[in-house]
Amino acid sequence: MEDNKGNHMTRRDFLNQAGKVGGAVAVWGAMESLGLIGHSLVGAKEFQSPKISDLTAVNKNGKKIIILGAGIAGMTAAYELRKAGYECKILEARDRSGGRNWTVRNGTKETELKGYKQTAKFDKELYMNAGPARIPQHHVTIDYCMELGVELEVFSNSNEFSYYYQENAGPLSNQKIRKGTVRADTRGYISELLAKVSDQAALDTPLSKEDIERLKDFLTRNGDLSDNLTYNGSSRRGYSELPGGGHQSGKLDEPYNFSELLQSGMMNHFSGDYSYNQQPMMFQPKGGMDQIPKALEKQLPGVITFGAEVQEIRQGPDNVRIVYKTNGKTKEITGDYCICTIPLSVLKNISADFTKPMKNAIKSISYAPAGKIGLQFKNRFWEQEDRILGGITTTNMDISQIWYPSNDYLSQKGILIGYYNFGQNAIDYGNLPHSQRQARALAQGAKIHPQYNNEFESSFSVAWQKTKYSEGGWASYSSSDLKNYYPILNEPQGRIHLAGEHLSYLTGWMAGAFESARIVVSRIHEEVLKENKVSSKAG
Amino acid sequence: MEDNKGNHMTRRDFLNQAGKVGGAVAVWGAMESLGLIGHSLVGAKEFQSPKISDLTAVNKNGKKIIILGAGIAGMTAAYELRKAGYECKILEARDRSGGRNWTVRNGTKETELKGYKQTAKFDKELYMNAGPARIPQHHVTIDYCMELGVELEVFSNSNEFSYYYQENAGPLSNQKIRKGTVRADTRGYISELLAKVSDQAALDTPLSKEDIERLKDFLTRNGDLSDNLTYNGSSRRGYSELPGGGHQSGKLDEPYNFSELLQSGMMNHFSGDYSYNQQPMMFQPKGGMDQIPKALEKQLPGVITFGAEVQEIRQGPDNVRIVYKTNGKTKEITGDYCICTIPLSVLKNISADFTKPMKNAIKSISYAPAGKIGLQFKNRFWEQEDRILGGITTTNMDISQIWYPSNDYLSQKGILIGYYNFGQNAIDYGNLPHSQRQARALAQGAKIHPQYNNEFESSFSVAWQKTKYSEGGWASYSSSDLKNYYPILNEPQGRIHLAGEHLSYLTGWMAGAFESARIVVSRIHEEVLKENKVSSKAG
Repeated sequence: MEDNKGNHMTRRDFLNQAGKVGGAVAVWGAMESLGLIGHSLVGAKEFQSPKISDLTAVNKNGKKIIILGAGIAGMTAAYELRKAGYECKILEARDRSGGRNWTVRNGTKETELKGYKQTAKFDKELYMNAGPARIPQHHVTIDYCMELGVELEVFSNSNEFSYYYQENAGPLSNQKIRKGTVRADTRGYISELLAKVSDQAALDTPLSKEDIERLKDFLTRNGDLSDNLTYNGSSRRGYSELPGGGHQSGKLDEPYNFSELLQSGMMNHFSGDYSYNQQPMMFQPKGGMDQIPKALEKQLPGVITFGAEVQEIRQGPDNVRIVYKTNGKTKEITGDYCICTIPLSVLKNISADFTKPMKNAIKSISYAPAGKIGLQFKNRFWEQEDRILGGITTTNMDISQIWYPSNDYLSQKGILIGYYNFGQNAIDYGNLPHSQRQARALAQGAKIHPQYNNEFESSFSVAWQKTKYSEGGWASYSSSDLKNYYPILNEPQGRIHLAGEHLSYLTGWMAGAFESARIVVSRIHEEVLKENKVSSKAG
Repeated sequence: MEDNKGNHMTRRDFLNQAGKVGGAVAVWGAMESLGLIGHSLVGAKEFQSPKISDLTAVNKNGKKIIILGAGIAGMTAAYELRKAGYECKILEARDRSGGRNWTVRNGTKETELKGYKQTAKFDKELYMNAGPARIPQHHVTIDYCMELGVELEVFSNSNEFSYYYQENAGPLSNQKIRKGTVRADTRGYISELLAKVSDQAALDTPLSKEDIERLKDFLTRNGDLSDNLTYNGSSRRGYSELPGGGHQSGKLDEPYNFSELLQSGMMNHFSGDYSYNQQPMMFQPKGGMDQIPKALEKQLPGVITFGAEVQEIRQGPDNVRIVYKTNGKTKEITGDYCICTIPLSVLKNISADFTKPMKNAIKSISYAPAGKIGLQFKNRFWEQEDRILGGITTTNMDISQIWYPSNDYLSQKGILIGYYNFGQNAIDYGNLPHSQRQARALAQGAKIHPQYNNEFESSFSVAWQKTKYSEGGWASYSSSDLKNYYPILNEPQGRIHLAGEHLSYLTGWMAGAFESARIVVSRIHEEVLKENKVSSKAG
């Protein structure tokens, strides 16, 4: 490989070069084109951060960009544009950055729409990630953590030691059963069923006789089957008495009855862990998810105006003008472009110079209701007593999930996520005052962890659909929305560009906000470069 | 529930009480008997640490216990016995504690049997766990970490983003394929095969019609099947182009051909992750596995004599006498009991007052050959370029496995485990001088990670069968050994008791050493209490 001066470059030289120019993602794209990594990890278009030299080359300074919202998308846009010297101003309605990336700590205050007020009484060192809480390996979020120096630790998304617990689901109802036990039994039975008919099952397939033997061999291993291809239980499902020292050889239990397992529906929860965005390993920033917005904010000194509630979004042929309210006063700010990251659920009520189809698109998209409660306990009984270190218990009760903390294992106290639910369950919880949400979460959780009754200390709940300036968990597109409205939302409206998780195919993930911000940054930067060329030719 | 004074105790009172008396494991046992935890997690016999009051109650001080070996078993025995005031002396041949729990760092020196000498040149903040490297949630090792204040972090044992790479295995040979992709395709195909014949397959089973429908429903979810019960690929296997912002909706690839997958044998590696000792979540101490022996050693001031090589193990009716060599001088020490934790592979060559059947048993047990190499690289290309954060790549090459570090994610440098192998592969590597082990590990690893060629800095290898004072990875019992020799090894020889991972059903795990030590501690303590009672009656 040669560089542009004809010198031979080592592969590493090339990649270092690419890294300097375009950041980690450029390296990654370059890697892929060199065949150094397996495929399936790179997005379609590579992002190149705007560079200071882009603008000086055409003898012109950057433009002024007004950004609405200091969430992930807004701050990323400012961070990237400032790399090329653009002047950026962010208006943020809240008194903090991060938007839905919100870590609740001791003293956090929030008043919900319709008036429920809470103050978090958690211990000082504890926290609850009320919004995003986990990062998959392939998301661009990881690149930004690397670039911004945000330290990561494993988020335990899938722990075989956590429980399934089902109600009204046949003979296994109201029993907590470890996920690994249900998986081992299910793998055993389906392997047995298929192994016994594999000659037949393969009739319609192009499998050779040798392949069928390989299949049977695999099924035997996969299900831990006996020689007669029968599943009789397995040490993989756990023991009634663990193997230990001396003569303690361990005692196995009988597997659960397959029909009872099928009736329980527990195995229908498996596929949650299979999705590409939820496969292990997953990660969280050390010290709370808000380490990401905090790291972005640190890069933006003097850029953000907090407590600035946008009232009007206006534009003329040459500029944008934003009217906002702060400390009871109405102010305005003008700039060359506007990047609007306000959620559509909020934006629909703001007066703006958008076309009619755009206004219609904005008000047509629904947002997912989503709720979480953090429950602080005096003791980590789930670790000390249930021996569950991280992970998620899954149930068909309306709390849906219990999340065990993925940090500070074996320490004294901890905060569980006592429910994390969507849809109707989230609406139901959201309609309750906080005290009743807490009571309901405790009552259901105590069926799985009776220790709830004695160990509970304090709680904080969030109902995203009732949270001011968010009004929903994430944009929820139907397939007809994607066809009818999504293309319109993605088109700039003159000098106003929308960005955020809602302008991505990764709705509900921070990565969607990061990627959307990059697209808008590239689009504005290209436009400015084009304008500059035209004007420098003209001049 | 009432305490022994007839007062009502809350459940928590009771457990706190149990905790004070018997430590975390007693709490756990008590929990189980209260029905507070799911079953399958508690060993047969609960361990009670000896207490100072046990001995003062019979007006007699503790005995002197000579312990051979400052590994996990030896130090645990001393730690527990000293809780009741026993005088303990540990003789340790090495100049460090921990035995096979060995973290190699900058400056670590080791000369193998037959003479190969190495000095680790790793960077100061980096390390390699040469022996045990991961802890399952249910092992007693976790209890000791809690009791001793050893902080844990997740060991990424099972990462869907790491690779399978097979040679001479059909059309998919010499390709690195992400584990999650192979799993998604395999689940897809076997779900399809079974779904299509499930009516038939269930003929011989007691499944009802409703159960068969539930089974089909499960298989459809499990395999991500289409409406016609066919597997046509799935987003779970990854993308050729990831979904992202704006119009980047993501592009899927075709699944691998099922016959080619079967020929590759990749799926036969799945079951490694299913074993009860390897299911997620797994853990490692922050800062290296040797944080465990260091924490134990801290509890044993003045107890351990390092550089003391045991020459003879002698006993009379009333005492034990150990002859050892230190700094070229022969010394001896006497005591009331001896706990010998020396591996059988080493013990067989030490002169000892054992019965003939015991000597025969000791020399009959083989030890597993096991080898590891740590490779330090200038850059964490596996994170930055392959996007693998932790986990293990699995291959049929003789390196067998590549382990990515589970700590300090996104930092600059890192140490990979370049091979971890057993049996003949371990013997083959062990027979090479270090430079050739390194060359072989680099050549094979570079097939998966071509970055090996430019990024490698330094290495350190261990061949446990050639490591002085260990001479093997762990005791490897055949079923006839368990029948013929294991019972003999577990019997005390007069005043001498054997302990260690080799006296457990958890060979190769630290938990085996911990549990075995507890058994010997209880046995000696009971004997002393009995003796004391007899002598106090006599006096």
